[in-house]
Amino acid sequence: MNIAIVGSSGYAGGELFRILLHHPSATVTAVTSEKSAGKPITDIFPHLLGLTDLVCEPLDPASIAKKADLAFLALPHVTAQEAAFRLHGLGIKVVDLSADYRLADAALYEKWYEHRHQYPDLLKSAVYGLPELHRERIRKSSLVANPGCYPTSAILGLAPVISRKMLDLETLVIDSKSGVSGAGRSPGLAFHFPEANEGFMAYKVGSHRHTPEIEQELSLIAGTQVTLSFTPHLVPMNRGILTTIYGRLTGSVDTDSLHAVFAAFYRKEPFIRVLPVGQFPNVRNVRGSNFCDIGVHADGRTGRAVIVTAIDNLVKGASGQAVQNMNLMMGFEESAGLRFAGFCP
Amino acid sequence: MNIAIVGSSGYAGGELFRILLHHPSATVTAVTSEKSAGKPITDIFPHLLGLTDLVCEPLDPASIAKKADLAFLALPHVTAQEAAFRLHGLGIKVVDLSADYRLADAALYEKWYEHRHQYPDLLKSAVYGLPELHRERIRKSSLVANPGCYPTSAILGLAPVISRKMLDLETLVIDSKSGVSGAGRSPGLAFHFPEANEGFMAYKVGSHRHTPEIEQELSLIAGTQVTLSFTPHLVPMNRGILTTIYGRLTGSVDTDSLHAVFAAFYRKEPFIRVLPVGQFPNVRNVRGSNFCDIGVHADGRTGRAVIVTAIDNLVKGASGQAVQNMNLMMGFEESAGLRFAGFCP
Amino acid sequence: MNIAIVGSSGYAGGELFRILLHHPSATVTAVTSEKSAGKPITDIFPHLLGLTDLVCEPLDPASIAKKADLAFLALPHVTAQEAAFRLHGLGIKVVDLSADYRLADAALYEKWYEHRHQYPDLLKSAVYGLPELHRERIRKSSLVANPGCYPTSAILGLAPVISRKMLDLETLVIDSKSGVSGAGRSPGLAFHFPEANEGFMAYKVGSHRHTPEIEQELSLIAGTQVTLSFTPHLVPMNRGILTTIYGRLTGSVDTDSLHAVFAAFYRKEPFIRVLPVGQFPNVRNVRGSNFCDIGVHADGRTGRAVIVTAIDNLVKGASGQAVQNMNLMMGFEESAGLRFAGFCP
Amino acid sequence: MNIAIVGSSGYAGGELFRILLHHPSATVTAVTSEKSAGKPITDIFPHLLGLTDLVCEPLDPASIAKKADLAFLALPHVTAQEAAFRLHGLGIKVVDLSADYRLADAALYEKWYEHRHQYPDLLKSAVYGLPELHRERIRKSSLVANPGCYPTSAILGLAPVISRKMLDLETLVIDSKSGVSGAGRSPGLAFHFPEANEGFMAYKVGSHRHTPEIEQELSLIAGTQVTLSFTPHLVPMNRGILTTIYGRLTGSVDTDSLHAVFAAFYRKEPFIRVLPVGQFPNVRNVRGSNFCDIGVHADGRTGRAVIVTAIDNLVKGASGQAVQNMNLMMGFEESAGLRFAGFCP
Repeated sequence: MNIAIVGSSGYAGGELFRILLHHPSATVTAVTSEKSAGKPITDIFPHLLGLTDLVCEPLDPASIAKKADLAFLALPHVTAQEAAFRLHGLGIKVVDLSADYRLADAALYEKWYEHRHQYPDLLKSAVYGLPELHRERIRKSSLVANPGCYPTSAILGLAPVISRKMLDLETLVIDSKSGVSGAGRSPGLAFHFPEANEGFMAYKVGSHRHTPEIEQELSLIAGTQVTLSFTPHLVPMNRGILTTIYGRLTGSVDTDSLHAVFAAFYRKEPFIRVLPVGQFPNVRNVRGSNFCDIGVHADGRTGRAVIVTAIDNLVKGASGQAVQNMNLMMGFEESAGLRFAGFCP
Repeated sequence: MNIAIVGSSGYAGGELFRILLHHPSATVTAVTSEKSAGKPITDIFPHLLGLTDLVCEPLDPASIAKKADLAFLALPHVTAQEAAFRLHGLGIKVVDLSADYRLADAALYEKWYEHRHQYPDLLKSAVYGLPELHRERIRKSSLVANPGCYPTSAILGLAPVISRKMLDLETLVIDSKSGVSGAGRSPGLAFHFPEANEGFMAYKVGSHRHTPEIEQELSLIAGTQVTLSFTPHLVPMNRGILTTIYGRLTGSVDTDSLHAVFAAFYRKEPFIRVLPVGQFPNVRNVRGSNFCDIGVHADGRTGRAVIVTAIDNLVKGASGQAVQNMNLMMGFEESAGLRFAGFCP
Repeated sequence: MNIAIVGSSGYAGGELFRILLHHPSATVTAVTSEKSAGKPITDIFPHLLGLTDLVCEPLDPASIAKKADLAFLALPHVTAQEAAFRLHGLGIKVVDLSADYRLADAALYEKWYEHRHQYPDLLKSAVYGLPELHRERIRKSSLVANPGCYPTSAILGLAPVISRKMLDLETLVIDSKSGVSGAGRSPGLAFHFPEANEGFMAYKVGSHRHTPEIEQELSLIAGTQVTLSFTPHLVPMNRGILTTIYGRLTGSVDTDSLHAVFAAFYRKEPFIRVLPVGQFPNVRNVRGSNFCDIGVHADGRTGRAVIVTAIDNLVKGASGQAVQNMNLMMGFEESAGLRFAGFCP
Repeated sequence: MNIAIVGSSGYAGGELFRILLHHPSATVTAVTSEKSAGKPITDIFPHLLGLTDLVCEPLDPASIAKKADLAFLALPHVTAQEAAFRLHGLGIKVVDLSADYRLADAALYEKWYEHRHQYPDLLKSAVYGLPELHRERIRKSSLVANPGCYPTSAILGLAPVISRKMLDLETLVIDSKSGVSGAGRSPGLAFHFPEANEGFMAYKVGSHRHTPEIEQELSLIAGTQVTLSFTPHLVPMNRGILTTIYGRLTGSVDTDSLHAVFAAFYRKEPFIRVLPVGQFPNVRNVRGSNFCDIGVHADGRTGRAVIVTAIDNLVKGASGQAVQNMNLMMGFEESAGLRFAGFCP
C-alpha cells in the first residue's frame, strides 16, 4: 500500500516516516512540503540519510491521489481542513493529525479555534481516532481525526472509571506535562534552548484548545456533559507526556479494586500497559514506543482517585496512533509495524 | 555574628554557604561533616575554591556552641532531633532544615516518619519558619523549623484564599513538580543521569511526607482540619519547584478579584512576586533567588481557582528561607543578604 | 538462531534486547544477571514490558550453551575473560562487548587494565570486531572482541587517511565527547543528575584505557607504531559520541580531495555516512541508529585535517555493532535487523 | 558611579544587570533597547522583577552620556562600531563586549567580519580587555574591547606556557565546547530545544571568528606569528565553556613542573584557580562566577601538554570580565562586586 505524508517538515511528519520505514505493508511514496519542495526529505531530516531518496513536492491533491492510497495530514489546523476535503474527495483515505476534524460540533470548533469550519458535512463523517474507544468505527472510516497528544493521555486515563461511573464528574482535574517537541518545530523564544532548559512552566491555564476535545470524548462515555480543569505544562525534555488525573470516587474503592477496573477495561489492548499496583509510569519507559502506561491509586485519606498516564507525545500521541488508525482503516493487523520497543535511555 | 552549618555536605549546606558568603552581618565559622571531617569544605564543593579556607569538623555540640551564635542544621531527619536538642540546650539559636521540628503533633510525626520524637517538649517550643505566616513568632524563637520545599510552594499559594475562605476545603488538589536536587546529593538509580534525564514521573503518590506539613499550616489558617491531595513529580532539571493548585471557589470570583486578594495579602512581602493577571510563573525566573512567584486564574467554566507558584527549592525552599529566618531571629533586616537577583539563563 | 545475552542489566544489554526484538533471524532465548536472577527482564527494563516474558538466570555456561548458538557478553572486563573462555569452549560463538579480548598483546592488556590475562591462547584467536576493517576475519571467527565506543569513533575517522599515509603520525590528537550512558548504569556522584547536568568535563586525561585499542588498530593500518593523544569528555546528554580528530597533512590537500578519499574508502559501507563537503555530524542524527556520520575539513591555514565523527555509543559503539558482528559470524546479511532509522528528536 | 548598558536585551546585557545590582560603587542608570524602548527591563528579564524599575530607552548617545560615566556595549558587531565612537567622543568610558575593537589590525577585522572598520583611529587606542595580560593598559584606557568567550578560555590556558616558550607553536590545537547561551538569545532551528537538547556538534570548523583574536594575543606573547587550529562545539547546557588545548612540549617537562609554571604565572590573580595536579576543571564549578579554572597534564607518552580551562561564558567570558575591566578603568578594587560564589548545582 502506498502512503503520502502531507506536511512532512514537522516532528509528526518525521516520526511518521521513521515508523513507516519498517511497516510490513505500507510504503511512503510521496512527501509534501511547500518550503522544501524539490529538496530531498533528508535535507529536513538528516537522521534519515541513507534510508530514503524521496524528494519533497508541493501539495497537489490530484498528484497525491495518484501516488497514494492513504494520506497522513501533518499540517497546521485550518490548513488541514481543505487538504482533507480535497484528498478525501479524490477517493483516498485520510488520517488528519491536526485538530480540524476532531470536534464533532462545528460551533465548538469555531469557538476554540477562532475559525469557521468550511466542511461541516465532511466533519460529520469523520471518526475520532482513538482505537481503544472507536475501533470499529475507525475500521469503516475514510477520514479519521487523529487525537491530540494531551487528549490521548487524558482520555485513556479516565475512560475506564467514567464508563463505570466511579468518579464524581464535577471534580475532574487533569494536570499534564509535556516535552518540548509538543510545541512543534518552529523556533520561538519560549523554546529557545537556554530559555526552556532548566525551566518549567504552566501555560494556557484554563484555555488550552485540547480541553473541548477531552470533554467531548468523556461526555460521550459519561452520557452527560463533562466539564473539567485541564492545565498543560512544559518539561525540559524532548518527548513524552505525563498526565496526572484527580477525581473524587463516588463509592468506597481501594487501589486493588481500582486497578482491577483498569486491567479489565484494557485487557485486550495491544498498546495499553496497566502497571502493577504501587507502580507509576515514567515517560522514559514509553519514549519512542506506541505504548500508554497507566498507574492508579485510590486515596483513602481524601476519597480521590489519582491516575497517572504516560505516552510519547510523537508516537501514541501523534504518529504512532496515526499508523494504528491506518492499520485499522486498511484492514491490516492493528499493531503491524508498531510493536517496536521504546528507546531507553 | 558567627554561624555554624551542621551537615555541610549536601545541597542545602552548600547553598547556605554560597548565600552567607555575601551576608553583611553573618560569618560562617564552623562547618561539620562526619564523612569529610578534616578536609577543606572546598573538597566537597569545588565551586567555593578561593572563597573560603574552612575545614570540616565532626559534630561536637560543645565545640560548635563556642564558635557560633546560631547553627543551621542540614542533617537528615531523626539525626537532627538530637543535634537540635543539644545545641539549643547549649544556648545557641537553631534553624533546623530537616523535618524533625515541623509537625507540632509528635504523634503525627511518628506516623509519617516512623520514628518516635525524642524531644516533645522542645518540639512544642519550635516555630514553623514560614515568615509570611509566622514572622513575629520567628523573631522571638530560638528554634525554628525551616519548612519543606514543597510545603513552602503550596502554603504560599493557598494562604491568601484560605484565610479569606474563598475555597471549598474538600476540593484541594496540589500537583507539584521538582528539580532533581530536591532528592538530595546521594546517588541512586532513579537519579542517575541517563535515568532521570529525558524522564518525568510522579512518585510517592498519596504518601509523601510533606503532606501533613501542608495540611497542618493550612488547617491553622482555616481554623478547621484540612485534608488534601498532594502529588510530587520529578523534573529533569537541577533546581526549582512549580506547584499547580486547584480548588473550587465558594463564590463567584473572577481572575481580577482573585488577583487582588493575592496582591493585597502579599503587599509588603519582600520575597513574594504576584505576577500580573494573565501571567504564570516559570522556575527559570526564580532560580538562584529567594523569590516565590505566583500566578492566578479563576476559571469561569469550572468554578475553580488555579494557582501556580514557583520557587527555587534550594533557596526559598531551603537555604534562602533559612537565612531569612536567621535574619528575623537575630534582629537583622529580614532581607539582608537575600536581595540578590536570580540566575538566568 | 538462538541468542543469549550474558550480563543483561546494563545499558548494552538492554540495547541488545531492543535491537534483537526486531531481528529477522535471531531470537533471544536466555538472559543472565546474577543480581536479578529469577526476575523478569522487564523488572530491569520496564520499557520492554509487553514485549518479552524472559526471566533472568544466573550465568551457567553449560545451560547457556544448550539454549543459544551465540552469546553476547555484556559483562565488566576481567569477568568476561572466563565467561568467554568457557562458553567458547562449549562450542558456541561469542561476541564479547568488554575490553578483555580487544588488545592482541596480553602484556599491553595487563599494563592498562592491571589484571593478568588468563587465556592468552584464546586471546590470539580473537578478532577485533570492527567490520569496516576486519570483515572477512570476523566472518570466520568464533570469538569477536567488540570494539570500545570511543575507539569505533576514532578509528573510523582515521582509517581512510592513515591507510593513504596522508597524515603525519606524530601529530594525531583525538578529542572525544560522550553522553553519560557511556559511563554505565551504576550510580555514582559524578553521574548523579544534578552533578552531571549543566556540567562538562574532561576526564582520565592521558590515561583512558581506550587509548591502546585505538593505537593498536591504527598501527596495524599504518604498518608502524602509532602513539597519539586521546582525551574523553562527559556531555550532559544520554547517548552519543562526537569525536574531533586533528592531524597534520603530509601533502597539500584541499577539502574536496580529502572528502573524496573518505567517500571512496567507505563507498560500499552500509553504516558509514560521509556527509557532503561543508557539513559536520551531530550526534542527534545518529541517535538510536547504527550509523557513523563523518565530516571532514582540510584547513589551508594550518595544514591540518580536521575530521569529525558521530556515533550512538550504545549502538554503533556497542550493541548495534555487536549485532553487525553476529550477522557476519552467522552468515546473515550484514545489515539484517540494523537498518532502522535513528530517533530524532 | 553611573553606568549605562547599551543593548540590554541579550544574555550579556541581562548578566551585566545581575552583577551590577550588587556592585558596591556602580549603579545602572540607563538601559537601551530599540525593540523594547518604553518597556521596563523586567519585561525582558522577568527574573529581575522586584529589583529594578528601569525602563528601556532607545540609544541616544547624548542622552546616555548625560546619565552615565561608563557604558557597556552589548550590541552586535558592526553596530557597536559607531556606538562606541559616539559615546567615546562624548567623553564617557566604554567597554565594548562586541568584537568591533578587539582586532588591532583593521584589515584582519575586515577579512574575518566582512565589514570595513569605520573608525581605525579609535581602534588604535582600544585595549584588549584581558586583565591577566593587559591590566596596566586597561587602567589607563577609555575604550576597552572585552574579549570573546572562547578567546578568554584559550588565551588564559596558553599564556603561561607560550610566554615561557615551552610549546612548539606549530602544534597548537584548541578544542572548545560551549553551552548554548553562547549563541545568543535569538531563536533559530539549531538552538530550538528539541534540536539542541540531546545533541552535540562541531560548527564553523576552521572558520570561527574568534580564531584571529586568539592568534593575535598569543602572537603578542610569543613575539612571532602564531597560527593554530580552533574548533568550537555546542553542548546541551545553558552556560559554560570548557577548552581542551594540545601542544607539543619543546623540552622534557613533567606534570609537576608544568603545574608549577601555571601556579607561578597566576599566583596573584584573583580569578584564576589553578587546580591541584591530577584535577581537571568542570564548567559546573565556575557557573555563575568570574573564575577561570585550569588543569594541566604533561603527557610523557606523546610529549604533549594537555591544558583544560573552564569559564562561565557569560561571566568571565563576557559580563563578569567586563565589570572587571570597569573596575580597573575606574580605579575600583579589581574584584569589587565580583567575588561571588558560583552557582552549584
